[in-house]
Amino acid sequence: MTRPSVAIVVTGSELVRGERTDLNGPFFAQEALRLGLQPARITIVGDDPGDLEAALREGLEREVCLVSGGLGPTHDDRTIELVARVAGRPLVVDAGLELEIEAVSRRFAERMRRDYADFSAGVRKQATLPAGALSLGIAGTAPGVVLATGSCVVVVLPGPPRELQELWPRALVAPPVQEVLARTTRPGRRVARLYGVSESLVAKSLADAGGDGDGVEVTICARDFEIHVDIVVEPGAEARADALEAALLEPISTFLFGRDERSIEELVLDACRTRGLTLGSAESCTGGLVAKRLTDAAGSSDVFRGGIVAYANEVKQGLLGVPGPLLEEHGAVSPEVASAMAHGARERLEVDVAISVTGVAGPGGGTPAKPVGLVHLHAVGPMGEIPFHMELPGGRDVIRARSAVAALHLLRRLL
Amino acid sequence: MTRPSVAIVVTGSELVRGERTDLNGPFFAQEALRLGLQPARITIVGDDPGDLEAALREGLEREVCLVSGGLGPTHDDRTIELVARVAGRPLVVDAGLELEIEAVSRRFAERMRRDYADFSAGVRKQATLPAGALSLGIAGTAPGVVLATGSCVVVVLPGPPRELQELWPRALVAPPVQEVLARTTRPGRRVARLYGVSESLVAKSLADAGGDGDGVEVTICARDFEIHVDIVVEPGAEARADALEAALLEPISTFLFGRDERSIEELVLDACRTRGLTLGSAESCTGGLVAKRLTDAAGSSDVFRGGIVAYANEVKQGLLGVPGPLLEEHGAVSPEVASAMAHGARERLEVDVAISVTGVAGPGGGTPAKPVGLVHLHAVGPMGEIPFHMELPGGRDVIRARSAVAALHLLRRLL
Repeated sequence: MTRPSVAIVVTGSELVRGERTDLNGPFFAQEALRLGLQPARITIVGDDPGDLEAALREGLEREVCLVSGGLGPTHDDRTIELVARVAGRPLVVDAGLELEIEAVSRRFAERMRRDYADFSAGVRKQATLPAGALSLGIAGTAPGVVLATGSCVVVVLPGPPRELQELWPRALVAPPVQEVLARTTRPGRRVARLYGVSESLVAKSLADAGGDGDGVEVTICARDFEIHVDIVVEPGAEARADALEAALLEPISTFLFGRDERSIEELVLDACRTRGLTLGSAESCTGGLVAKRLTDAAGSSDVFRGGIVAYANEVKQGLLGVPGPLLEEHGAVSPEVASAMAHGARERLEVDVAISVTGVAGPGGGTPAKPVGLVHLHAVGPMGEIPFHMELPGGRDVIRARSAVAALHLLRRLL
Repeated sequence: MTRPSVAIVVTGSELVRGERTDLNGPFFAQEALRLGLQPARITIVGDDPGDLEAALREGLEREVCLVSGGLGPTHDDRTIELVARVAGRPLVVDAGLELEIEAVSRRFAERMRRDYADFSAGVRKQATLPAGALSLGIAGTAPGVVLATGSCVVVVLPGPPRELQELWPRALVAPPVQEVLARTTRPGRRVARLYGVSESLVAKSLADAGGDGDGVEVTICARDFEIHVDIVVEPGAEARADALEAALLEPISTFLFGRDERSIEELVLDACRTRGLTLGSAESCTGGLVAKRLTDAAGSSDVFRGGIVAYANEVKQGLLGVPGPLLEEHGAVSPEVASAMAHGARERLEVDVAISVTGVAGPGGGTPAKPVGLVHLHAVGPMGEIPFHMELPGGRDVIRARSAVAALHLLRRLL
């Protein structure tokens, strides 16, 4: 069974200019996916009528077209007019909707001490819909609208994400949308998370396993220096998914660290929590990023006790107890100092498990012996300790971000 | 003069499925705008070849088409193949580029202890370009490519935002891109950055000042809890821009903190550097985020000495010297403890200026007297000290991020 295809059209000049990040496209797409629909494209256009009309014309060729924005009271909000034109429908005023918007606008006019007459043309404009369209009522002053063209079900919602998300459940129960959803089945989803392996090796492993298809869809995605594998399974394809999953993961199983949506920091915190261990950090080049990530998760305070950002050598000595001669002999970026930092953090923070990071994040500070990108890490706990180092390519941000991820994964290995 | 029109095509199945927010579309759009081009649409498609080809076909009808993603080594990365098809060009292997990608892949294969032969087909695929295209070299293993079709200049860059942004400056100096830019006039741009004021108050101030238009375009954008005002000025409209700018900023001038692109952390570091002051932090609820932001900037190590993430009360006592009775009497989230943390950091880290943050980030831990969102801050330095507190709405991430921004702005006020 092929899933009904969905086009998403988002309008807003601040969005097409990149001044604000669009939240509605991803929201629509995730919802479509969850409902067993297939999001095929997201088009973002500004308020140029030609651009918007072209995007709607393409959108209405799909079985479902989800549209956001361009529903305001002013002349440059043209979404409804253009949907009507593309669908070949005349525009008619929805009297019930007009009363609804009028009530809100009268209250607003009163509050602003303005004459309602200033608003009435805008209200009428916002209550004008393509003939045969269904009003979903309003959130704010803009309405949600559903229109079945015969070949496509169009849902039009206001641009402000809160209003859009408030009206969305009403769209889902509208009869034309219900008819489409009756033709879909919600797919199953499995995830595998890997670290230390390249995207291309995972892709090769998938190809060697026979590739996806036949109701099993595999996405391989490098995210935050990890590889995330998503397996979407149509009902009935479970056996094929089991076989593919096993064959795909077998050669790369040493890199597998997660089978659910939990992030690496949550896995580390959960592992500590289960064992009743407390955790602390000592960071130089990552400047607090490891601690920040470990405290991103709610409830981290029962495991994570604290961290020391020892940027200056004096702080490494004073607060982490790294011996001055060790710093002088080996330099701040060395396995010896990484180890001393981790042990120092364990002692000073009075924690069971500690992680340290010291490296050259650049752009300055590199030498031939210790180039930009050289990072030493050290994890220590009651179960032992692991030193680790890397030579990372990339700029300062990449080196810092990747070092923090490596630190979290080193903790996982230790635990 | 009309600006050359730009289509942006972003490919990535995780993007069209809404699983990740696209950063490349907004980046391209902002860059286009800055260069005097007109971003007309952003299209996001997955790896379905039909969808991608259709998006590219539309894109190549514009004067400029900026494309991201789909450059990987595997068969489902089809961007180059489809750009060639739409442009009517055969595919040819770029020998120089192949050597470049091979070198990176060989190093990677060695590190992974894998046979390079596993990679060679992928390398060749990634070095295959439309005839006449210009390689921009690589960041990661995927190349950047520029192709002039006669009617359209196409720039294709890798999907990972960091790689894309690394290669973008090389695209700008490529001759076909330079030819387009020679036909544009870069509008002037002025920025104003404000903190502590609402977007709607700035919008009202703009309206009261007469609004934009006539060659002056004003965008008001809430970003990272600051308000960024961008004023884009067409050549010849400078006098009107001066007048509008003065009238717009006059009623909100107390909130103005920057007239250039420097981030708040850069402003704080620069202010310390100028005065020869060192800086340190003591964080509880922000868990290292303030230190992380202060060390994001290259060269921060001459000012920022270190930080203490005192998540547990014992760490507040042991490492920051916050007296136990003070913690017991007032609780960890109190002006008294915030002050003791800042003074403790100043002493223990041996810095001139220190900032502290302690608050209830939630979702747990709130009480009627100290609800989730209550945050106390304290900044101290040779010029004096400032206590500050806020009651923030929103979830854990928002409260943490906003507290960190508040800490940086409190430092700026102190300095």
